Parts: sequence; structure tokens; C-alpha cells
Amino acid sequence: MQKIAVFPGSFDPFTVGHENIVLRALDLFDRIIVAIGIHSTKQPLLKIEARVKMVNRVFESYDQVSADSFEGLTVDYCRKVHATHMIRGIRTSADFEYERAIAQINKKMLPEVESIFLLTTPEHTPVNSTIIRDIIRNGGDASQFLPRGLDIKDYL
Amino acid sequence: MQKIAVFPGSFDPFTVGHENIVLRALDLFDRIIVAIGIHSTKQPLLKIEARVKMVNRVFESYDQVSADSFEGLTVDYCRKVHATHMIRGIRTSADFEYERAIAQINKKMLPEVESIFLLTTPEHTPVNSTIIRDIIRNGGDASQFLPRGLDIKDYL
Amino acid sequence: MQKIAVFPGSFDPFTVGHENIVLRALDLFDRIIVAIGIHSTKQPLLKIEARVKMVNRVFESYDQVSADSFEGLTVDYCRKVHATHMIRGIRTSADFEYERAIAQINKKMLPEVESIFLLTTPEHTPVNSTIIRDIIRNGGDASQFLPRGLDIKDYL
Amino acid sequence: MQKIAVFPGSFDPFTVGHENIVLRALDLFDRIIVAIGIHSTKQPLLKIEARVKMVNRVFESYDQVSADSFEGLTVDYCRKVHATHMIRGIRTSADFEYERAIAQINKKMLPEVESIFLLTTPEHTPVNSTIIRDIIRNGGDASQFLPRGLDIKDYL
Amino acid sequence: MQKIAVFPGSFDPFTVGHENIVLRALDLFDRIIVAIGIHSTKQPLLKIEARVKMVNRVFESYDQVSADSFEGLTVDYCRKVHATHMIRGIRTSADFEYERAIAQINKKMLPEVESIFLLTTPEHTPVNSTIIRDIIRNGGDASQFLPRGLDIKDYL
Amino acid sequence: MQKIAVFPGSFDPFTVGHENIVLRALDLFDRIIVAIGIHSTKQPLLKIEARVKMVNRVFESYDQVSADSFEGLTVDYCRKVHATHMIRGIRTSADFEYERAIAQINKKMLPEVESIFLLTTPEHTPVNSTIIRDIIRNGGDASQFLPRGLDIKDYL
Repeated sequence: MQKIAVFPGSFDPFTVGHENIVLRALDLFDRIIVAIGIHSTKQPLLKIEARVKMVNRVFESYDQVSADSFEGLTVDYCRKVHATHMIRGIRTSADFEYERAIAQINKKMLPEVESIFLLTTPEHTPVNSTIIRDIIRNGGDASQFLPRGLDIKDYL
Repeated sequence: MQKIAVFPGSFDPFTVGHENIVLRALDLFDRIIVAIGIHSTKQPLLKIEARVKMVNRVFESYDQVSADSFEGLTVDYCRKVHATHMIRGIRTSADFEYERAIAQINKKMLPEVESIFLLTTPEHTPVNSTIIRDIIRNGGDASQFLPRGLDIKDYL
Repeated sequence: MQKIAVFPGSFDPFTVGHENIVLRALDLFDRIIVAIGIHSTKQPLLKIEARVKMVNRVFESYDQVSADSFEGLTVDYCRKVHATHMIRGIRTSADFEYERAIAQINKKMLPEVESIFLLTTPEHTPVNSTIIRDIIRNGGDASQFLPRGLDIKDYL
Repeated sequence: MQKIAVFPGSFDPFTVGHENIVLRALDLFDRIIVAIGIHSTKQPLLKIEARVKMVNRVFESYDQVSADSFEGLTVDYCRKVHATHMIRGIRTSADFEYERAIAQINKKMLPEVESIFLLTTPEHTPVNSTIIRDIIRNGGDASQFLPRGLDIKDYL
Repeated sequence: MQKIAVFPGSFDPFTVGHENIVLRALDLFDRIIVAIGIHSTKQPLLKIEARVKMVNRVFESYDQVSADSFEGLTVDYCRKVHATHMIRGIRTSADFEYERAIAQINKKMLPEVESIFLLTTPEHTPVNSTIIRDIIRNGGDASQFLPRGLDIKDYL
Repeated sequence: MQKIAVFPGSFDPFTVGHENIVLRALDLFDRIIVAIGIHSTKQPLLKIEARVKMVNRVFESYDQVSADSFEGLTVDYCRKVHATHMIRGIRTSADFEYERAIAQINKKMLPEVESIFLLTTPEHTPVNSTIIRDIIRNGGDASQFLPRGLDIKDYL
């Protein structure tokens, strides 16, 4: 059986923390899909297409990893791509509570897909997309919190 | 002295978790009012009237329980209906912090009404209205998270 | 049906925080039993008998409230005294996680007894028996953290 | 070296809790600037100018303390006023996680400014601006949660 | 490359929660070793040999899973058995903080072994070994919290 | 007024995390005393004298910093050395709850001493003395978690 993991999120933007989670999960799966959820209500920093392009660029040398976008429920997307697992990174205990609720509800709705979690490394723990987005919006330099070699201006 | 409990919330929608809290609190009170707060700013899934109707339907065989809606502060509503207690369910430790602040402020503003808390049973812990609302909005089947016998389509 | 609540704990010592919980729960129950658990392994500050005496002294003008001690499981004690409810105070979110586990396990073992929770008032939130015990053991003055009129020296 | 602390926040409104933090930090710094961040997206209760006026009024007898407003990143404002420290109050463990992330990111972006934290006193722990704002918006009396002598009507 | 996961813990006793974690992790690994740590200081309920026997009995129909005991650091044990991963279950946010510290320290000491986490299912969240141990020590019936078919008396 | 800060703790052992807190607090105080509490009940890894020696060695080039040991309550020690402040580092939200209780109780007992908090930097967040002590006791190499240039063997 092929092991296919979906790594769902907003990734607005995709940070060093997200990159690190994918790299550490690589040898557990045959394929990892970074699945960017489309939420019509939130005003994003980056367009969906820019985020897909950004993630594909980060993993251009990894055939196993690809980026995709989806609308609707994560479990429906998992069904569509025949995912066997979902991956999530957890940074803090505040994240944890929410992640646990989501994972347990997903498990009820789609029992055959198991959620597994990686904890961020210490240096990536404070890096959360909301804060990074705020820095970029205010013209600050967020490059140390983004995957190496990325210029956020190429995606804005 | 009659014991009258107000169970305030948005209940958008009213879930199995909420139902379970009311049922477990029943024998402590002469009357329980499920009080649905009207918040002009949030875009709800269900109209206030639909939510009142929904809760009344769930407890139609319980004379002790009724639904009502209110605008403004919960403490003002409690005063109006001569409540002696407020009931709240707590699911997670993230909920807890917020509930504690609210309860302590309410106690300062209306010392004669005591807040009591029930903790959700394990199987209801992940059921939160935000997640359930998201499932319904995306066309998913949320019936296992709603009180038995309810069809959400009757209330949308 | 008589409503009998068990308020279980170590109460080593019984603090203003504990007293406050009992007083606020008084009008919900016909009887409240402060049930002091005997744990052979822990080295207590106060002997069990002194703790029972202390609690009885605090509530000497309340017929509804009495103190007792018990060995073994709390659910077994609840069965013995025909309790309908357990009361617990929660101070912090760290307490919360543990209290939730205990309440859920107790519910599985004795479904007919419901646990209800009161949250400490702000000024009592930092008062925990471990810290108070430490103050007393080191000869500090802990009287402001104990029920008014109690002299801890009478119980040591 | 002059010690200049920036106390950044929305302060919508400035509460007794905020006042208490400033007073307790006074003797550590030569100067404390209460820096009110302008966020274009949020719909505030009080205008920025009213908040600046309010804070200046609270500390009118303290030469060391002044109020200011700023747009953009807090680190940029700190640079501008040659701050040596940032002060933050922490109320709950939910606050803590977010404050830690912000402080760690700020430290990465501006290593020469150290963030120090004071924990709210017990009676101020439940006082958070969101809840107070809600009380004021609904016509409730929030005066006990505001600095003594302030009439919120003067600032609305 | 063979994927070998170590699932370290005290397992005193091994509960339905632990069993559930192993079963859900099964298809990610070629081999899972339930590794029971020997701590000379704690007074256990079950002897190490009884715990090893208990776990082997639970998974007797799974060739992939075996039980072992070890002294010393978990990272040293992982090195010895050529583990590629560690598995941990997380129940609550209180667990989370500690698990994160341990995982991050282990990663520093043995970078080639990745820790992955599964969150307990809702019904297993309150099941923690300390509480179960307490029930058994007090003569209570803990069978609903232990793997099906196990009689704890065979291992005491 | 001289600003004298007490940094109380067990420091068994003193880690890079502790060192980092002292260094970042240096410019706020005229004097920092690392005050090592003696607890007769706990079985330490390092003797009190070894810990005092260790801390003095770490800060031998800083005249402002000294190490001391004390028995009894921290507030009594603060009184004795005329401290104006206490410093504490907070690593996680689990720490936070306990630190808040301690700080609030200390404030009640000794209002003139203010507690201020620094949050650990990300890379030091997982470094806690219990885990480090466990590594050392099991013969692991903990040097990366100790102040640079220290050989733990000199203090065992």
C-alpha cells in the first residue's frame, strides 16, 4: 500500500517551520501533498496560486513532495487523493487543543485516515504565519523565518 | 427559593455536547433556560429564531427546559429572568481560561448569581460549534455531532 | 430526592479557597460532606483527625456541612454515603486537565454521580495547599490564606 | 545608559490591570512609554487620540510615564524611541503562549531590546480589554475595571 | 531502510490508550518495540517482567510488535536497537509541554531518530496510568481501561 | 536606591537556560544574587556547595553576580539581603501557572519585592534541570545544555 500524506494548512506564507515538518516526515511516506485550503472569508497576504508556486519551489528537488490547493473539507480532499495519513505540526499547547479537536473530528468522519503530529524544533516554535504575515505587511524583513533562498517579493 | 439556571451561549448550532450538559444539570435546577445571545457582528450559520426553535425541539419533552434569545450582557439577562445560577460547559483548558475570566467578571457585576461548570464527557470534547459549522457550510454530514433526531436542514 | 454532595480532597490544610467553594455551593445541595482522603504514602502536615476537626470548626454554624475521612476510591466513598454529586474547585488550567481526567474516569465508574465544578475567585486562585503547607513548615505566617478565626497551631 | 521601556498594546480601553503593570514597573525604568498600536482592520471602541488622552490622564502625576501611538511594527517603534526594554503583562497561560512567540520573534528582529514580563495581580487577572469593551458597548457599568477617577464617557 | 519505532514508557499498567496508539501506528512501521523503562526510584504496581509479558500477550497476533525493557536513557536504547523513530501518544496539553521538551532534547542528542506523535482518541483521553494504578491499588474494577481480555490479576 | 534582584531556584544543575536569564537581566539591576534553595527532602544530583561553586565559576567575570544558598522561605531570604526584586525565567505555559501562584503569594507576603519574568529563548525552552539531571545520572553527555566551559564532573 502506498503511503500518501496530506499536510493541510493555509500556509500564508509557508514558513521555515512548515518546511522543517515536511523534511522530517519525508522518510515515513511515499508521497506528501502540501494541501493549501481556500477560505473565502479570510483576506490573505498571498494568493492561492502564489502559495502553490512557493511550496513547489521550496521542494523542487524532492519528487515526493507536491503542492495543491483545495476548497471545502480537508477530509473530502483526503478522500479524493486517496490519502492514508494527515500530517500536522504542533508548536504550542494552545495549538494542541485545537489540533486535537480537529484530528478527533476528522477521525470520526474519515476513520481510515490517521493524523500524525510532529512537534516543531525549538528555534521554529515562535514562527507562526500570523506573526510573519504581520511583519511582511508592515514592511519588515521576514526572510529569516522563510525557507532559505525564497524572496517573498516574488510571491506578493 | 426556586433555582433557575441560565445556560448562555451562541449555540450556532446547538450540539450533542450542549445537549449533554443540559441533561446532566437537570436535577440541580427547577428550571434551565438555554439563552441564545444575539451578536450583531458575527455572521451566523443559523438565524436566532431557528436556534430557539431547534433547542425547544430538542427538549420538547422536558418542561423544565426552555429556549430564549437575548441581546446585551448576560448578567442583565440573568437579572431579568431572576436567575440564581449560570451553567457553562468546559471542553478544554483553552476554554477554561476564557470561561474563568468571564465567570469572575460576571461574579463582580452580579454577585448573587453563581456560575457552575460541567466538563464535557470524553466523546463530546472535540465537538465545538465552530468546527461543526464549518462541516455544515462545506456540505459535510454533521449529524453525528447534533442531538439525535434533528435534521439541520430544517433550521438552515 | 435529597441532594448530597461530596467535596473530596486532601485539605492539608483546608484553605480560604476551599471554604469559599463550599459556601458558594451551599444553596445547591441539601448536604455537603467535606471528605478527606487518607493516602498512606504522602507525609502530611496535619493528621487526618486534625483536618476533620479543622473543617468541622470552620462550618460549625452550618448544619448542612460536615467533615469526614475515607480510605480508598472516592467513588466507593460516594456510594457509601449515597452521594448524588461531587464538587470540585478548579484554580488553574493546569488543575483543569487533571480534574477532567478524574471526573471522566469517575463518571465511567459511577455514572449516577455527577461532578460539578466551581472556579476559584480571583483572590483565591494562587492559594494552593502545597504552597501554604510550605509556608507553615518554614515558620511563615499563612493566616491570611486560612479560614478566618483559625489558628493553625491548634491543629499541627 | 538611560533605561527606556515601551509598553505596547491596543489599550482599548486601558484598564486597572494595565495601570497596575505600569506602576509596578516604574522603579526599574527611567522612562515608560505606553505605546498604543494603530490597527486599521479592527473596529475600536475608543479612538486612538482618546486612548492617548486617557493614558496621559491616568499618569498625569508621573513625569516618567507618557502615552504615544504608533503604526507598523512594535520593533520599529522601539528603535525610533531608543527603547532598551519592552514590558508586557501576562494574565493567563493562554496569553503566555502568544506573548512568548511575539517576544521571541521580536528578540530575533531587534536583539538589543529585552522583553520583561509582569504577571497580573490576582484581582486583575480576569480583567481583559475584550470583556470590558463588551460591557461598555452593552451599556454596563465597567468603572470598577478602569483606573480610579476615569469616566469612560469622557473618551467614547 | 527498515523503519523501526520505539514506543517508550513506564506502562504501569499498559492501558487501552497505549494499545490504541500502537494499533494506529502499525502501518507506518516495519517494527514497533514497546520499550519499558526501568526506574529504580519509583515503586511500581507491576514488576518489569510482568509488564513485558502483559504487552507481549496484548500483541501476540502481531509479529511486528514486541515488548522489551531497558535501563538508562531512551536515546541509548534507540541507538542499540537501530530505531529510526520514536512514537509517543499525547493525551492533554499538560502532557504536551513535557513531551515537547523531551522530544526536543532527544532530537539534540540523537538527531537521526525522529519523534512522531499520535493524539489519543476522545474516549481514551482520561485514561492515564496513574489513575488506573490508583483504582487497582484500591481494589476497584479497572478492566474497562485495560486491553480487552486481560486480567490484571495475572500480572500483579 | 540600589536595585538588588534575587534569582531563586534549585539549580540542580545550573543550565545554559539559567545562565541566559541572568545575562539578559544584568543591565536592569545593580546586583543579582543566584539564590540556591536548600530542600532537605529532595535527593539532589549536586551538593549545595558544588552548586554555589558552579554558579560563581560561571559568573566569575561579572562582579554584579554572586551565588548564595538559603534555607526556608524565599521571601525571608529576600528580606535578609534587602532585595528589591525577584527574577524568574518561564519556559512553558505549565511553568507559568505555578510561577504565577508563587509570585502572587510572595507578593501578598512581601509586597515591597516585585517579581519580574523573562521568557527563555527558543533554543533553551526544552532545557529543564530535571531532564538534564536524568541525562547526567544515566551517563549521557549533557555538556551542550550546561554553561560553556563547565565540566559537570568537577561538581558531582
